[in-house]
Amino acid sequence: MKTTTLAIASSLVAALAAAAVLAAEPAPVPAPVPYPEGYRAWTHVKSMVIQEGHPLHASFGGIHHLYANERALEGYRTGRFPDGAVIVFDLLEATADANAITEGRRKVVGVMHRDAERYAATGGWGFEGFAGDGTTERVVGDQAATACFACHQAQAGDDFVFSEYRP
Amino acid sequence: MKTTTLAIASSLVAALAAAAVLAAEPAPVPAPVPYPEGYRAWTHVKSMVIQEGHPLHASFGGIHHLYANERALEGYRTGRFPDGAVIVFDLLEATADANAITEGRRKVVGVMHRDAERYAATGGWGFEGFAGDGTTERVVGDQAATACFACHQAQAGDDFVFSEYRP
Repeated sequence: MKTTTLAIASSLVAALAAAAVLAAEPAPVPAPVPYPEGYRAWTHVKSMVIQEGHPLHASFGGIHHLYANERALEGYRTGRFPDGAVIVFDLLEATADANAITEGRRKVVGVMHRDAERYAATGGWGFEGFAGDGTTERVVGDQAATACFACHQAQAGDDFVFSEYRP
Repeated sequence: MKTTTLAIASSLVAALAAAAVLAAEPAPVPAPVPYPEGYRAWTHVKSMVIQEGHPLHASFGGIHHLYANERALEGYRTGRFPDGAVIVFDLLEATADANAITEGRRKVVGVMHRDAERYAATGGWGFEGFAGDGTTERVVGDQAATACFACHQAQAGDDFVFSEYRP
């Protein structure tokens, strides 16, 4: 009986030691958010123009369109976005001239990519931005928590999504 | 020989008379352009905001989005729109406030529907507008030639289409 108790105690100590080692390791770096190939054929959710003087102008000035893949559309419908849901924030220059605003060059392709486990630290969403028309220059990288999630966490009640699908 | 010539002449007279009767009939009324069911899931082509002071503001003031079905996308790619191509001009109120322009209520769903034979009188395109969020209140009707094609015919070199697909 005594031996058994000692054996259990010993195992517990070993387990606790292993746990301590794990805790000391740096948090795992989430896998990079993939470029949203083919998003221009996804469903258009809504659009908005952000002009000079708007508090978000420095980051998001221009005209932006939101696009959703099928799983993201399910999220807009139900309020819960399943893994694999992807929302694209397609930001273009907005050219104001002669009482019209037209689309200019692409500034950034912003992405929210749902993977509850992989991106647990940022509400289950991976955030990234791809500069201009390219698919490789990442403008968020490991700054998602401060550059994106700091604002999005205010939307916890809507699964961290600001936009709503416009019928 | 003489009889044959007379017979031919007689046939010609009969044919000309028949043609005259046809010409005297009123032009056939083109079939109504169908409401573009499901267009919100079609591909978003581009968008634009038309503000007060713009020459088209009375008709098209607000923010509009263009959507294309698969055949219309083929037209944007090739420059020739096949029968069955449909382009939607989705016009919403544009609300300017606090240095942002957001989408308001739907004003009209404009439609260009390709059928070269049916709509031969207007460049092979049927034009219609459906008021607000409804699918039945038609705002163009039999006025397509003056209300729509009068401007679109300037685009004959582009198959009567103004917009270009934004990649």
